[in-house]
Amino acid sequence: MRNILIIGSGKSTSYLISYLLDKSDTEHLRLTIADIELTHAKNLIKNHPNADTLKLDIFDESARSLAIKKADIVISMLPARFHIEVAKDCLKYEKHLVTASYISEELQALNPEVTNKGLVFMNEIGVDPGIDHMSAMQVIDRIREKGGKMLLFESFTGGLVAPENDTNLWNYKFTWNPRNVVVAGQGGVAKFIQEGSYKYIPYHRLFRRTEFLEVDGYGQFEVYANRDSLKYQSVYGLDHVKTLYRGTMRRVGFSRAWNMFVQLGMTDDSYVMEHSEHLSYRDFINAFLPYSPSDSVELKLRYQLKIDQDDVIWDKLLELDIFNPNKKIKLKNATPAQILQHILMDKWTLNPLDKDMIVMYHKFGYELDGKNHQIDATMVTLGKDQTYTAMAKTVGLPVAIATLAILNKNITTPGVQLPISKEVYTPILKELENLDITFKEKEVPYLGYNPLNI
Amino acid sequence: MRNILIIGSGKSTSYLISYLLDKSDTEHLRLTIADIELTHAKNLIKNHPNADTLKLDIFDESARSLAIKKADIVISMLPARFHIEVAKDCLKYEKHLVTASYISEELQALNPEVTNKGLVFMNEIGVDPGIDHMSAMQVIDRIREKGGKMLLFESFTGGLVAPENDTNLWNYKFTWNPRNVVVAGQGGVAKFIQEGSYKYIPYHRLFRRTEFLEVDGYGQFEVYANRDSLKYQSVYGLDHVKTLYRGTMRRVGFSRAWNMFVQLGMTDDSYVMEHSEHLSYRDFINAFLPYSPSDSVELKLRYQLKIDQDDVIWDKLLELDIFNPNKKIKLKNATPAQILQHILMDKWTLNPLDKDMIVMYHKFGYELDGKNHQIDATMVTLGKDQTYTAMAKTVGLPVAIATLAILNKNITTPGVQLPISKEVYTPILKELENLDITFKEKEVPYLGYNPLNI
Repeated sequence: MRNILIIGSGKSTSYLISYLLDKSDTEHLRLTIADIELTHAKNLIKNHPNADTLKLDIFDESARSLAIKKADIVISMLPARFHIEVAKDCLKYEKHLVTASYISEELQALNPEVTNKGLVFMNEIGVDPGIDHMSAMQVIDRIREKGGKMLLFESFTGGLVAPENDTNLWNYKFTWNPRNVVVAGQGGVAKFIQEGSYKYIPYHRLFRRTEFLEVDGYGQFEVYANRDSLKYQSVYGLDHVKTLYRGTMRRVGFSRAWNMFVQLGMTDDSYVMEHSEHLSYRDFINAFLPYSPSDSVELKLRYQLKIDQDDVIWDKLLELDIFNPNKKIKLKNATPAQILQHILMDKWTLNPLDKDMIVMYHKFGYELDGKNHQIDATMVTLGKDQTYTAMAKTVGLPVAIATLAILNKNITTPGVQLPISKEVYTPILKELENLDITFKEKEVPYLGYNPLNI
Repeated sequence: MRNILIIGSGKSTSYLISYLLDKSDTEHLRLTIADIELTHAKNLIKNHPNADTLKLDIFDESARSLAIKKADIVISMLPARFHIEVAKDCLKYEKHLVTASYISEELQALNPEVTNKGLVFMNEIGVDPGIDHMSAMQVIDRIREKGGKMLLFESFTGGLVAPENDTNLWNYKFTWNPRNVVVAGQGGVAKFIQEGSYKYIPYHRLFRRTEFLEVDGYGQFEVYANRDSLKYQSVYGLDHVKTLYRGTMRRVGFSRAWNMFVQLGMTDDSYVMEHSEHLSYRDFINAFLPYSPSDSVELKLRYQLKIDQDDVIWDKLLELDIFNPNKKIKLKNATPAQILQHILMDKWTLNPLDKDMIVMYHKFGYELDGKNHQIDATMVTLGKDQTYTAMAKTVGLPVAIATLAILNKNITTPGVQLPISKEVYTPILKELENLDITFKEKEVPYLGYNPLNI
């Protein structure tokens, strides 16, 4: 038997665990699911004979290293900031490691030693980052192999509610960490390249500089720019590309409405509001509006943001009940972002039968034999229920498949890795296709942003 | 003779030095002006027999302590971040210290030792901070002494160009550190209290939430909120005040035009622009606008910011020559804020004969015998030329007067201080009046922000 230690049994582990358990007899796998709280883990393994749970506080160093010592490979599904301790133990006891998180500087610093010891530390192998890397590199490599020269790469991902449960005016519900949604786009300028020009969008303009996309069978979406469009430019070998743009997908109209919160300052997470626990929803919104005893909060808001009487964004606000003077926030020492999250969670929390949806859209523009071409590739995955979500599927399955590939020595290149090489993405994307995570490609005319070549 | 060591001989030291030299015979003062570069110091002392210059690198510890050892009192006119080294030496050699800068946490930490040794470390005794503290506390103390209860305190200061030299469309020239003007308002939300309600303005709304003021004989001004309106609430004893608001004064119309730069992201100082040295002024502005080969930078800007054809803010942009494709920025690895500053300095630098102006405006609202009252106090100081500026006068004279008062034991309370006690402000404000820095007070009806008591 090969021992797989999975540390952390949160929301994104359902498919990961079921995939490995399904293979456990044929592949001789023994799973240990370690967490400080075991209820979810026990529900997921359902007394499967090849799985155990282990109550583990990851800050308990001796318990942690004992567990890691016994494993052949470790999967860390902890929040990203906790990976490093696990990684150091994996290095010490010479175990392979798989995570779905971005490679931190601390982790990257381990690369020489990891490589030296012949270990594979595979990271960024969830959905975004993860499937985006693999699906993009597969097409980029294919274009290059036939002699094409990349001109444009754009890549967008969104975690949304499934169309059948898309029942509010915002066309949005929280399908993942609500906090990340509230503070999305903060912490630095959004930077990208269009037709060779660097472009910069400050946070307070981000949600007014959206672009539109159509996904066959799923209708229209909009995109706002990520901060880090250039992050993988070198990694993907796109140093001479003319256009490079990465973004987040929402349903059309979300960003224009969200921009109200940004404009008022309600998404700020950098300071605590005075007496936040005593504020009503109405007080909260009023704290960002000028004092005026003779005017309603509603009119002050309309005036400040110049919202017409018949503008649908107004109805979106009303739907959130944000003007309610009787609902109290009850959060002590809370930032505006924390309070806004609290208010949104009243309305944007999934109902028990709601399903989620992951959408990904890549555009590849290239030149071949003197002509310009474009391939658009889209992937849509729907959740089954609130345990077997699209998010858990697209995060967990690549992790599971990579883990097995490393155990079976199909992935062997040592070091702190991300899944951009053929050795890695080919078998994983193939297996994902069998599991119904597929990209639809179509050739479209390459227009770029300067179709008339002005 | 009493030895006064002045460390730093920058722009704000002209009046400081001339005041002390004028008194040097009668008060038995000997001045040593220490700086790493002595040209300016030599111009200011003009071979006065009671003054010497000393070439000093303040990072040369032994030279620094030698100079401080010889002094009876030290004035540090260095940039604020360098005071702490001087202060530590002053503590060691038991010398009094005077600075015009905000008390840093590091400096505050010296308070017990400074107090123990009976030393006076007087800070925040320039114009803002300085004259604002003293003039405010004088009125607040007077109101309290007659039994009044403070309801409202608002305080505004502006460093501007003198009316006779106010010749550009922005009604603004750089009379002080241009960098501070470009990044003004950044680094945190603006927070204040109006009629008992806390109000918060995010940076990107700051320049659209201005208020207006009229200064007799000088016309209209506008004010945008400082970040730190509540900073002195406790220090001034205003914990139960209903309205507390501090701000920066500009001529009317400045903020609405400045807001264009804020909206586009051109004041951001947190990242470096790619290839900044090769950008033209036009490229710079275009980097913040969407790519569109068929449209001019001008039209894209008008459209993004919804600027009407006949709006004067457009003329303000044209005056800066900001659309010029031929003028290059030539700054390597520059942030947007640095580039914007560079562009503005072309047009906003004072001409050799231009004079500056300092304006201060306080509002004091209070209740006395069941009735509400208000006192407005204003101060305007004009520069004489570009050495004897209003800024140098209002910063340097309070520093000089305080230094003499400490030497003469008229200010004796030991510790790390700011000028808010009667012992300090009474003699200094009196002497400032003799030197033509005066406040005009007038009683006005108290309206507050809720005149109808709704």
